[in-house]
Amino acid sequence: MKKLKIAVAGLGRIGKIHLKNLSRNFPEIEVVAVMDVFDESKAIADEFNVPEFTKSFDDLLAVPGVDAVVICSPTDTHADYVVKAAQAGKQIFCEKPLDLSLQRVKEVMSIIGETGVKLMLGFNRRFDPEFRKIRQLVQNDAIGEIQIVKITSRDPGPPPVEYVKVSGGMFLDMTIHDFDMARYISGKQVKEVFAKGAVMVDPEIGKAGDIDTAVITLTFEDNSMAVIDNCRKAVYGYDQRLEVFGSKGMVQAENNFPNNHKLYTESGISGDLPLHFFLERYDASYNQEMREFVDALVSGVEMPVDGNDGLQSIAIGLAAKKSVAENRAVKLSEVMV
Amino acid sequence: MKKLKIAVAGLGRIGKIHLKNLSRNFPEIEVVAVMDVFDESKAIADEFNVPEFTKSFDDLLAVPGVDAVVICSPTDTHADYVVKAAQAGKQIFCEKPLDLSLQRVKEVMSIIGETGVKLMLGFNRRFDPEFRKIRQLVQNDAIGEIQIVKITSRDPGPPPVEYVKVSGGMFLDMTIHDFDMARYISGKQVKEVFAKGAVMVDPEIGKAGDIDTAVITLTFEDNSMAVIDNCRKAVYGYDQRLEVFGSKGMVQAENNFPNNHKLYTESGISGDLPLHFFLERYDASYNQEMREFVDALVSGVEMPVDGNDGLQSIAIGLAAKKSVAENRAVKLSEVMV
Amino acid sequence: MKKLKIAVAGLGRIGKIHLKNLSRNFPEIEVVAVMDVFDESKAIADEFNVPEFTKSFDDLLAVPGVDAVVICSPTDTHADYVVKAAQAGKQIFCEKPLDLSLQRVKEVMSIIGETGVKLMLGFNRRFDPEFRKIRQLVQNDAIGEIQIVKITSRDPGPPPVEYVKVSGGMFLDMTIHDFDMARYISGKQVKEVFAKGAVMVDPEIGKAGDIDTAVITLTFEDNSMAVIDNCRKAVYGYDQRLEVFGSKGMVQAENNFPNNHKLYTESGISGDLPLHFFLERYDASYNQEMREFVDALVSGVEMPVDGNDGLQSIAIGLAAKKSVAENRAVKLSEVMV
Amino acid sequence: MKKLKIAVAGLGRIGKIHLKNLSRNFPEIEVVAVMDVFDESKAIADEFNVPEFTKSFDDLLAVPGVDAVVICSPTDTHADYVVKAAQAGKQIFCEKPLDLSLQRVKEVMSIIGETGVKLMLGFNRRFDPEFRKIRQLVQNDAIGEIQIVKITSRDPGPPPVEYVKVSGGMFLDMTIHDFDMARYISGKQVKEVFAKGAVMVDPEIGKAGDIDTAVITLTFEDNSMAVIDNCRKAVYGYDQRLEVFGSKGMVQAENNFPNNHKLYTESGISGDLPLHFFLERYDASYNQEMREFVDALVSGVEMPVDGNDGLQSIAIGLAAKKSVAENRAVKLSEVMV
Repeated sequence: MKKLKIAVAGLGRIGKIHLKNLSRNFPEIEVVAVMDVFDESKAIADEFNVPEFTKSFDDLLAVPGVDAVVICSPTDTHADYVVKAAQAGKQIFCEKPLDLSLQRVKEVMSIIGETGVKLMLGFNRRFDPEFRKIRQLVQNDAIGEIQIVKITSRDPGPPPVEYVKVSGGMFLDMTIHDFDMARYISGKQVKEVFAKGAVMVDPEIGKAGDIDTAVITLTFEDNSMAVIDNCRKAVYGYDQRLEVFGSKGMVQAENNFPNNHKLYTESGISGDLPLHFFLERYDASYNQEMREFVDALVSGVEMPVDGNDGLQSIAIGLAAKKSVAENRAVKLSEVMV
Repeated sequence: MKKLKIAVAGLGRIGKIHLKNLSRNFPEIEVVAVMDVFDESKAIADEFNVPEFTKSFDDLLAVPGVDAVVICSPTDTHADYVVKAAQAGKQIFCEKPLDLSLQRVKEVMSIIGETGVKLMLGFNRRFDPEFRKIRQLVQNDAIGEIQIVKITSRDPGPPPVEYVKVSGGMFLDMTIHDFDMARYISGKQVKEVFAKGAVMVDPEIGKAGDIDTAVITLTFEDNSMAVIDNCRKAVYGYDQRLEVFGSKGMVQAENNFPNNHKLYTESGISGDLPLHFFLERYDASYNQEMREFVDALVSGVEMPVDGNDGLQSIAIGLAAKKSVAENRAVKLSEVMV
Repeated sequence: MKKLKIAVAGLGRIGKIHLKNLSRNFPEIEVVAVMDVFDESKAIADEFNVPEFTKSFDDLLAVPGVDAVVICSPTDTHADYVVKAAQAGKQIFCEKPLDLSLQRVKEVMSIIGETGVKLMLGFNRRFDPEFRKIRQLVQNDAIGEIQIVKITSRDPGPPPVEYVKVSGGMFLDMTIHDFDMARYISGKQVKEVFAKGAVMVDPEIGKAGDIDTAVITLTFEDNSMAVIDNCRKAVYGYDQRLEVFGSKGMVQAENNFPNNHKLYTESGISGDLPLHFFLERYDASYNQEMREFVDALVSGVEMPVDGNDGLQSIAIGLAAKKSVAENRAVKLSEVMV
Repeated sequence: MKKLKIAVAGLGRIGKIHLKNLSRNFPEIEVVAVMDVFDESKAIADEFNVPEFTKSFDDLLAVPGVDAVVICSPTDTHADYVVKAAQAGKQIFCEKPLDLSLQRVKEVMSIIGETGVKLMLGFNRRFDPEFRKIRQLVQNDAIGEIQIVKITSRDPGPPPVEYVKVSGGMFLDMTIHDFDMARYISGKQVKEVFAKGAVMVDPEIGKAGDIDTAVITLTFEDNSMAVIDNCRKAVYGYDQRLEVFGSKGMVQAENNFPNNHKLYTESGISGDLPLHFFLERYDASYNQEMREFVDALVSGVEMPVDGNDGLQSIAIGLAAKKSVAENRAVKLSEVMV
């Protein structure tokens, strides 16, 4: 069987995960080229026996025979790279978000539509076994009509303030995953957002114009609700929980732990903290995400996460920002272009 | 030792619980009289060996030697009975709420103040061992500065629609306990409320002008937040959970269960549902509540829940109603008289 | 309705519990007399408004109108008191064990049989809600044919060595409850015992001729098995767990806790230890035990725990002692008189 | 860096796991040859790009440059293959057991000793993250002096009776892992074994001279104890739990689950069963086992599981068989050659 040829752009934390998974676990493809702006990243190419290393995206696209590209470069390059790849006729996996501007996202989606290539967006949590199980139960009507979706999503620590400044803000950088999860689990459209935010972790984040703690209420089109609580810093680690309440019952996904031990001593019962951060917690999801990208490439079926999924989550994020700024409920239609 | 003489007004579900606890568990007091509008309730007086049974509150107050009254009659009698008891110089325990009108609550509190009697309000959940433990951990700085309080509070089934119509609405009837819990656990004042409500359990509730499902965001004066989710019907029973997230950690109170068994069979692992409703779930809290009322009577210390606690929770409830009606964040100062 | 008149002998820890439950919770009986060898115990009689206090068991039996006696005095008085009470025609509740000698137990049972009074033995754990639930599941065939019963039973700390010396040894003093539990849960007869014991908590216990740590394997008549592990000292508190494994599944009873909180901090997740010792852990069981004793008195049905239950458990205990002494499997028939 | 050359003998379930892990996850080695008696297995060699496929172990050893062999062929070939590999100067990983005869194991160990090659035995559970965590806590003195080790080990279903007949019996085939775990966790030598066995799953197993349900008590040299319960069939899946009780506390390892969801419905709370069988449950352990084998090869340090570990576990298994047959406690010295 002829192997699909894949190129990977960007060898940061996520790029390396995708490269590792693609190299080791999927015999039906081969990674023929990787690109990164740093010379040092060539060592990574060598480690995974990738024959070509380039420093520009144009050079990557020019490597002969590439069928698909996996884009893991910084957010501000996503839109340009996706457009170039589409125009070169490559199938595309791109990390979220496509862009922080809804206008630009729409333009890119329009170009994608014209070229006929496929685009998959990297909302990796959709591929997490815990959340998959919840969605499957919801879809099997185990809890009936959804009334309330509850998402707890807290990071172990904030990113550097320099990053905060260019991140688009907590809602577009961090909560965007939760917005997508609310849509994924419920299968519903969000119509309104109310968000309260505070600076309780680091005053520097406030000076950078952002918040670090928030509670967000989403209203779906049928008036059912989702509520998300976020914090940039949970001293006990990465807190990723989900609960769905409906007319027939309720289902919860707990955190994942490095092990299940319980220690009983004179001073109490104790156990380990949850898996520390996204690399550990969502390890399986990254592999499954590539699995489904490759499967869709091979089989020609629809991509499991598409451009509209990215568009909706960005719009919800923009509405949340507006809601905090104006301390009022904001309709999605107010921000949607 | 001379025993304190207590009279109980109202022998509905809660009145009977208080009567039972007072009769059996506190040797330092005696219940000398009970009052109920129904003749049949005399049998209850007999069951607990209470010497006097009356059908009017005035007659109850006239029983010689009564030191304190425990008022468990319908909500619309609370204010009048409290005023009468205060004017007769009796110490008072009254079920929540004092009244649905903030104006009337203020009047009653003013009269109480003039008479110098003590008033304790029946926010029984403050005496629940689970929530007590959480508060103690919070006060011992186990979780540092509070950032987010999360309360899940769902009933096993809605009350009759006839009751809904006179209840003051879900926020004043059901959520009022959660509003008090948010204040009790955090020790903070609420400054703003945003609430979303929906009718998802029973359209009749909607026709009665009420909601049955809600998500409420409270903002405290220091910008930290509480989020409450409510439903009038959880098919799996009474769902009463609490989580407090802060700068040093997070603490959770789980539901209470009739037992801890786990059954493993071919079809999965299963266990029993939570204790069904408030009588079972808060059994210990009702006893402890009377314990502390009696202790305060005997020792002369402050009552553990006072009139202002009732006032604040009603104000939050009124703000929540206004928030749903106007779909906007409502400041407490907008509703406070 | 005429109230049953009950007398209580012995006001130690267990005697006080039974007295409290009988006095407060069962309106259909009255405690008319209590007996204790210590003068100071008269105060307890007064606290519970018991009209008669005696210092001898004969005097207690002589109190007019007594229908039943509850015997909570030291073990070495049980057999004599039971015989006297039976001969006086009183119904009897007696704490376990009837006696440490199988011969004596048989004699007593024979006398009981002749007098026609009823005897209930105080294996209180049979009335614990956790174990009741397990038994109910077993009886409802939820786990099919029982293959293995596992009992974990560890005390928070050893009794004084002086007590150990007269206790009959760990198997007859502590494990006897577990032997009864194995019989109660399985509904099967034990035919053979193998026990290993060690002195690992306190060398003084070894010097007193006893052990403090043990693993015991019971073989039932159908070759299914029970395994019990014991220790006189678990630093984390009272450890009382049960597991039953069968052809259709497995069911576990966990420990009971003062509350269900979980605290997440930088150093891990922690929670409270189990309820500390038998007074807290088996509080509900003591009440239910008296409930069923009183019900059997009133209704005339069979006592829920009878003399043979006591006999069997003592025989298993004696076989276990012999097994440790001779390091071999001992048939119950070897020790049974 | 020159890669170590490894050959794999036997491509059954375990052989394929080792081949996959060696091929994908350890860049410092290369699998240069695989051997299997079935022609069809050549396809597996191709799938993992292994250049040489042989049908005899001699041919495998003859492949030029092989540094080490991984032996996963049937048990009755282990001793011969290990001897041949040792005499050919290859480092050796061999699945357990080396042989069912203690005499033969001793001979093989003697030959290994003379040749100076290293031998690692495949007790994979030592590399499981759950049990590793427990051992680390034990070694860090988190629970003090060990008093009781409890191992629950139940399979989801029995092997075919034809396999049972040649397996050496449940103790040598299944419990051998638990015997090793008791030694690994405690770091102690076993001096005596008492085992009770029954046929409760399938009478055919009994006709084949084996048992399917057992409780085994091990006594360590310091008189502390381990207790193991086994069954060939747990309808709820693979049950692998461990508990260690000591002077400072107790630690438990729970089962591993495919996910952590909890579903609340009208009929109760439910969740998924444990991971089904050893391939899923011990997936991480197999990879870590190879990781440490390769590390020991590369670094020259001692192998983490050696021949004596195999010898001891077989001796315990033989003592257990003798104990069941003779219904008595058997000293390890009675069976050790």
